[in-house]
Amino acid sequence: MSADHPHVVVVGAGFGGLSAVQALKDANVDVTLVDRRNHHVFQPLLYQVATAALSPADIAAPTRSILSRQGNARVLLETATGIDARGQTVHFASGRQLRYDWLILATGARHSYFGRDHWARHAPGIKTLDDATAARRSILLALERAETESDQHRRRSLLTFVVIGGGPTGVELAGAIAELMRRTVSRDFRSITPHCARVILIEAGPRLLPSFPEDLSEQTRRNLEQLGVDVRLGKAVDDLGPGHVRVGIETIDTHTIIWAAGVKASPAAAWLGTGADGAGRIIVDPDLRVRGQPHVFAIGDTACCPGPDGRPLPGIAPVAKQQGRHVAAQILGRTGEPFRYRDAGILATIGRRRAVAALGTLHLTGFAAWLMWSVAHIWFLIGFRNRLTVSASWLWNYFTFERSARLITGDAETHVDVMQTLEAA
Amino acid sequence: MSADHPHVVVVGAGFGGLSAVQALKDANVDVTLVDRRNHHVFQPLLYQVATAALSPADIAAPTRSILSRQGNARVLLETATGIDARGQTVHFASGRQLRYDWLILATGARHSYFGRDHWARHAPGIKTLDDATAARRSILLALERAETESDQHRRRSLLTFVVIGGGPTGVELAGAIAELMRRTVSRDFRSITPHCARVILIEAGPRLLPSFPEDLSEQTRRNLEQLGVDVRLGKAVDDLGPGHVRVGIETIDTHTIIWAAGVKASPAAAWLGTGADGAGRIIVDPDLRVRGQPHVFAIGDTACCPGPDGRPLPGIAPVAKQQGRHVAAQILGRTGEPFRYRDAGILATIGRRRAVAALGTLHLTGFAAWLMWSVAHIWFLIGFRNRLTVSASWLWNYFTFERSARLITGDAETHVDVMQTLEAA
Repeated sequence: MSADHPHVVVVGAGFGGLSAVQALKDANVDVTLVDRRNHHVFQPLLYQVATAALSPADIAAPTRSILSRQGNARVLLETATGIDARGQTVHFASGRQLRYDWLILATGARHSYFGRDHWARHAPGIKTLDDATAARRSILLALERAETESDQHRRRSLLTFVVIGGGPTGVELAGAIAELMRRTVSRDFRSITPHCARVILIEAGPRLLPSFPEDLSEQTRRNLEQLGVDVRLGKAVDDLGPGHVRVGIETIDTHTIIWAAGVKASPAAAWLGTGADGAGRIIVDPDLRVRGQPHVFAIGDTACCPGPDGRPLPGIAPVAKQQGRHVAAQILGRTGEPFRYRDAGILATIGRRRAVAALGTLHLTGFAAWLMWSVAHIWFLIGFRNRLTVSASWLWNYFTFERSARLITGDAETHVDVMQTLEAA
Repeated sequence: MSADHPHVVVVGAGFGGLSAVQALKDANVDVTLVDRRNHHVFQPLLYQVATAALSPADIAAPTRSILSRQGNARVLLETATGIDARGQTVHFASGRQLRYDWLILATGARHSYFGRDHWARHAPGIKTLDDATAARRSILLALERAETESDQHRRRSLLTFVVIGGGPTGVELAGAIAELMRRTVSRDFRSITPHCARVILIEAGPRLLPSFPEDLSEQTRRNLEQLGVDVRLGKAVDDLGPGHVRVGIETIDTHTIIWAAGVKASPAAAWLGTGADGAGRIIVDPDLRVRGQPHVFAIGDTACCPGPDGRPLPGIAPVAKQQGRHVAAQILGRTGEPFRYRDAGILATIGRRRAVAALGTLHLTGFAAWLMWSVAHIWFLIGFRNRLTVSASWLWNYFTFERSARLITGDAETHVDVMQTLEAA
């Protein structure tokens, strides 16, 4: 680092943080990108790792590799724990600290259980690679146990998969689990058949994909039902615990519950003691500056930034990436310019060859939308290598229905846990 | 299962167990393959997962997929815990049991610490996918910590990698770690350079690769030293603990110790109460039958089977595979025929483009041997898909020196553990 260059600290190596760093490539600044993990994850495809279609390395790349050619950037593996705004310093769990001239907070979001945090243990979500491999282990172990289970009740519980939340993640997960059951299970298992398996998608609101146009929500429900998914709209989960989900008066016995219902921003707002919305997102000025903190920006899932219709912009990759570039431009002198989101459309996939896409007034469904989804996702995967192997994996899956990533890894303890849950159920 | 077919139970889905099951493909028997993991691992390439060149899914495949087209075989995810030879029954950890007409024990081997089992915690070995990803995490975290460590002593300890054992696994690991340091580190890290890193390979015997001809051992030592590996022959480890290895009067401060020094068979001999050699391997008759147990066979690393020179055959994949096929033939009626190993040669690779091979009297070294090693390993990888992606990964690595599998995954606890070890060091 040279002493006369301003020091930009970026916390979080997700889409927003990384795009901010890359937009500062040619600037006379020193950039430090801090994250508690060593890799950037292409989050929109985590559900494919959870359902064994892709491997972790297919959708993630070491942050150092991505930035290895950017001379003014360095990468730090640290967990941020607080900010001293007056002293312009970020504090880390290791006890170290780092001074900044500019700070970009891109710390993302985690799951929200709406005040019932004890649900997290029984209904984990999918936000990290470890979450995704844990979900994969849980799904595949349930199938293995079901194959040899003679008690009909337990067997039914093992073969019941409940996804809570009907947004894009929930829809894509439910579709992918249903595909996994239909194709792979019927070929590889001897005693269980796809008909034994139930995939239940629970959404509290009146329709799936609430951020999409209504006709696509309806199309999505139909497509999921064709895949055998039991879609329940307007039903809130009242309680859940080991082995069961309660919805109204009905109790669903299930071994696998996956949470895709709500997110809450990471505690960056608390670090700054600044204003936040109900989801914990920092309220930012139109140019993405944290109110009252002229040297601090918040972007992506960490920021509450109103869109053209006055509602907060959604927590999706294109928003975070554009905000990262906008903040970089602010630091380079385009001070005070308000952020404007250029909406290129939204996409969600349903199983192996169907998707829905809303591109302004153009609504696509079925295979055409799926093809667009595939091309878009491969294109945006960071790093040419990943694009190549993901394309190969997808083509292979598409033609053979094989899922080579169907490995149960992780410690024996988890395995024992599963067994105990089963015994207790 | 049909009641009139004999029931063959195979315990262990490694090379030996799988080849026995596949050799029974067209026979009028029912086969049950039992393993405590759901996947077959191509063990000779585990070291490439540990050094981030390949992903777990590249070298493993779900056992069910491999056998999905074999109608007379079923796969069971269970942990065997004992055998009732009189009742012809295998017992499992779940409390279940399974009757057999024929039993094939192919339970493999684990690490031996020569009576010092407390070393295992500080010097783990690499026998499973989880072992390999744990080693990868440990190596990559050491680099991350070193990048920001200002204390010169700690930094040196973080950048010292000790491999114990100079057999093929130790040689291949040491070479691969040295390559990782030379290539990737120099490009991606800002403050550490390849020259800061030390890779030390410790072998108690007088030469590396004791099962190879002597001229190749010497060539291997030279090649490793050219890669920067500090090879120490004739040195036994006297003690090791968190952060250090003691060899004679020298104490090496190191953050990463990997064990590749000795194996001991799984406890199958104890289950049967039958004779075992010093490494715990069951002593078998020439036709691989367990002495005094006409319906039980032991193969692969579980069996002590003398070769043509009277010494026990080595614990390598070709031996296990040929034994699996031999035992299948015995069950199908070729009773009492002694097993004869057809030795096609042995190979070990050293870094990115060198290897040694002994094919009878023909000894190959350098690039020619490496090419032969690559082709042989890709060929023997089970499943066409894996062959394809591994070839692509290798070609990519070869031309770009990139390692896309360089992900640190696993729970935060392990991360904390590492940090605490560092603080304590």
